[in-house]
Amino acid sequence: MNAGVEWAVHCCVDLAITGQDQAVSAARFAARYGLPAAYLNKQLQALVRAGILTSTPGPRGGFRLARRPSKITLLDVIVAIEGADDAFQCTQILKATPGADPSLDYQSYCLVSKAMRAAELVYRRELKAQTIAHLKAAVERRTPNAPTLTRRSLTVD
Amino acid sequence: MNAGVEWAVHCCVDLAITGQDQAVSAARFAARYGLPAAYLNKQLQALVRAGILTSTPGPRGGFRLARRPSKITLLDVIVAIEGADDAFQCTQILKATPGADPSLDYQSYCLVSKAMRAAELVYRRELKAQTIAHLKAAVERRTPNAPTLTRRSLTVD
Repeated sequence: MNAGVEWAVHCCVDLAITGQDQAVSAARFAARYGLPAAYLNKQLQALVRAGILTSTPGPRGGFRLARRPSKITLLDVIVAIEGADDAFQCTQILKATPGADPSLDYQSYCLVSKAMRAAELVYRRELKAQTIAHLKAAVERRTPNAPTLTRRSLTVD
Repeated sequence: MNAGVEWAVHCCVDLAITGQDQAVSAARFAARYGLPAAYLNKQLQALVRAGILTSTPGPRGGFRLARRPSKITLLDVIVAIEGADDAFQCTQILKATPGADPSLDYQSYCLVSKAMRAAELVYRRELKAQTIAHLKAAVERRTPNAPTLTRRSLTVD
């Protein structure tokens, strides 16, 4: 999995903490995490294309959440960065075997493919149950001064 | 995920069906599935190194299951081909942030990392619950003539 997933999730949690009043630029995020700004900006633009963030141009521009943190799941962020494909790609090798039906879609028929898909489904269900709001709340519960430090490093006084 | 995972799982199910009397060569598997024999052999050798298959040399040599099909899980096969690493790799980007504790292991401390790991755990648990014996039984239930066709394409008369 692309390192951009880690960056993107952290940026979303940060934006949930800093709130909607100010936009946060890629440069600010890059400075906070010691990451390459141009590459981080690419990941954030992918979140904009997926409807997770909005982006405003200009000197006080930057990124904001496009919807409430409770409506952004970990799965949304991963799919925005990595695409929606399953990790396991069935290439239908059964089609070449003796007795195979050439008209059959082995991607849905093959029992190996089905078992792999079942596992990916529980993975996705788990990622879908975790939202940016849950993560923000968990951070605030565990480290009460984290929001203040986050705001200080990301927003303009 | 490497296409070798699909090949390896199918070969294991086939070996559960053909039984322990005869070994099956990489060339036979390659012919059955229309796959490149040398590359398929590499995947099967990875299963040998992982203790899932045994390999015997010689003209009637080839691969056999190293243990009962009920003792080989889908997770075992995936780990043998892909390695044991989680898909999500935490690079501890929190370590660079203001107020971070440089002595802390953020891989276990970070709540984003924890949430991602929790999802991978349910994925692995699901893959661990599925064995080659389950897949063999499901194939035999659904396609009663499949074992005969499989044996015919893989074993010597």
